[in-house]
Amino acid sequence: MSDVDELEAGVRDGDRRALARAITLVESTRADHREAAVELLDRLVDRTGGATRVGISGSPGVGKSTFIEALGLEILRGGHRLAVLAVDPSSRRSGGSILGDKTRMVELGREPDAYIRPSPAGETLGGVARRTREALLLCEAAGFDVVLVETVGVGQSETAVAELVDVFTLLVAPGGGDDLQGIKRGIMELADVVVVNKADGDLEQTAGRTAADYRNALGLMRPRVAGIEPKVLTASALKGHGIDETWAALCHVHDQLSGSGALDDLRRGQAVAWMWSEVQDAVIDAARRDGHAADRASRIEDEVADGRRTPTSGAREILRLMVR
Amino acid sequence: MSDVDELEAGVRDGDRRALARAITLVESTRADHREAAVELLDRLVDRTGGATRVGISGSPGVGKSTFIEALGLEILRGGHRLAVLAVDPSSRRSGGSILGDKTRMVELGREPDAYIRPSPAGETLGGVARRTREALLLCEAAGFDVVLVETVGVGQSETAVAELVDVFTLLVAPGGGDDLQGIKRGIMELADVVVVNKADGDLEQTAGRTAADYRNALGLMRPRVAGIEPKVLTASALKGHGIDETWAALCHVHDQLSGSGALDDLRRGQAVAWMWSEVQDAVIDAARRDGHAADRASRIEDEVADGRRTPTSGAREILRLMVR
Repeated sequence: MSDVDELEAGVRDGDRRALARAITLVESTRADHREAAVELLDRLVDRTGGATRVGISGSPGVGKSTFIEALGLEILRGGHRLAVLAVDPSSRRSGGSILGDKTRMVELGREPDAYIRPSPAGETLGGVARRTREALLLCEAAGFDVVLVETVGVGQSETAVAELVDVFTLLVAPGGGDDLQGIKRGIMELADVVVVNKADGDLEQTAGRTAADYRNALGLMRPRVAGIEPKVLTASALKGHGIDETWAALCHVHDQLSGSGALDDLRRGQAVAWMWSEVQDAVIDAARRDGHAADRASRIEDEVADGRRTPTSGAREILRLMVR
Repeated sequence: MSDVDELEAGVRDGDRRALARAITLVESTRADHREAAVELLDRLVDRTGGATRVGISGSPGVGKSTFIEALGLEILRGGHRLAVLAVDPSSRRSGGSILGDKTRMVELGREPDAYIRPSPAGETLGGVARRTREALLLCEAAGFDVVLVETVGVGQSETAVAELVDVFTLLVAPGGGDDLQGIKRGIMELADVVVVNKADGDLEQTAGRTAADYRNALGLMRPRVAGIEPKVLTASALKGHGIDETWAALCHVHDQLSGSGALDDLRRGQAVAWMWSEVQDAVIDAARRDGHAADRASRIEDEVADGRRTPTSGAREILRLMVR
């Protein structure tokens, strides 16, 4: 039995060790591993698509891991099997900023129906996101019916996560109008649910005002999907308040998307866009990796940056080097 | 003397007919025209980069052409030479929604130091934006030192325009909080200057309130470039109010960007990104155009959309069809 056969069988059985090895395989950049990963994913494709895919983002300091732990336990109480993945291009195996530390989410990590996986290491956001997309499919194939994809609040990574999930939650800390400025404008438009965490003790009143500020800001904007207004909640992961409401709000949006056919359209579009973006990334990778072409491409890039050559002319030369 | 020689000489002389012919050449999709266009642009590259590049966007009904005419005349009074271009993927030679109508901007169109060019026709925004980028370089080579790039408020086109200009103006109409909802969230974050037009007569007070609403909404967001706060103004293109203030505000932002070195970084990044995006577009064009590959690509696309195949596997097969 080949490695791929074994992994396929293990993932289909929902075996966690097989899932972990399968994800390690899709994360590898070695050419033979990539071949095997593509083969494995293709074989499992009939088992994918079954999960509710939830994105969750929050800046450092908003209490993200405590919140995800509380939300995760709430999800498990509903009888679901939960996988938690992460997209963090700054992460390294040696300890990234999210999910790298195994001491986080201790309680959730002990649950038999939860699977937590740190962010793959990677130089580029695109690469990290691509491997997380594949890990998500593997989790679905292993029978996880809710997948949370976590990311840090660093701008581009939220957009990448939004492109691979069905619904998106933005986690924020209580604070005055000044704190709202910390959220990049483009990020708010991704959120289906905004949760003001740490609504407890001294911060409870501030959290209420922050929620009102967000409601106001979101009210001035057009919803991501027509007819689906983003919801703003307060919560305290510490006290366990607002966690069930958050999950209910996410499920409500998911049901609306699903019922109207919008979810199907969203996922079809995501899959096709993902394919073409892989084609595009692969071409650029090839232009930068392959010895002769890479040297030329790098020189052409400098000429274009310095304005010594037009982008169009640079692009044509790179294409001549590469495309059949 | 070849056509390219003649066009090069004419553009260098600032000859308007030569410029018009050169832009027609870069707009053509015929393979031999593309060759000549790339050659022409490469020869003129030393003359590019000298203009203040201004993006301007506004939904139908905000009085965009009247405003651009007033702003354009103000710019000419400062001794500048002004080119006005447009990005409108819905435009057709037969009469697009912007700049297609020669009866617009009558006064500006008569000025010897102004050059107005309608949007190129095109199926895709990417294609229209690419040709407008090249037209912008030609205008610079012809000695125009201010280039306005106009677009309609349709979401994606503003982003495309923002990627080819230095500063961006969003033109809006007076109206209550409800009208703010018409502006997609991502668009506001592009604006360096927001102008509430039609601040005259009955609408003057409403315009003031709308400006306050925008100031409030923008105040809740992080500026595009650190340290450069977006400015909100009221204006009446009809009465000629607020036009000089708009131009002054745009110049102020441009000076700040230029003085801090941010403009140089912005343009280097835009040029390199443009080159790679041309490479990527060309690869996708080739995958969709070339007979055999196109048939296969289209079948693969369906399989991926239907979830019968993973995007990764689809991408690999398309690459095998195409790349060296």
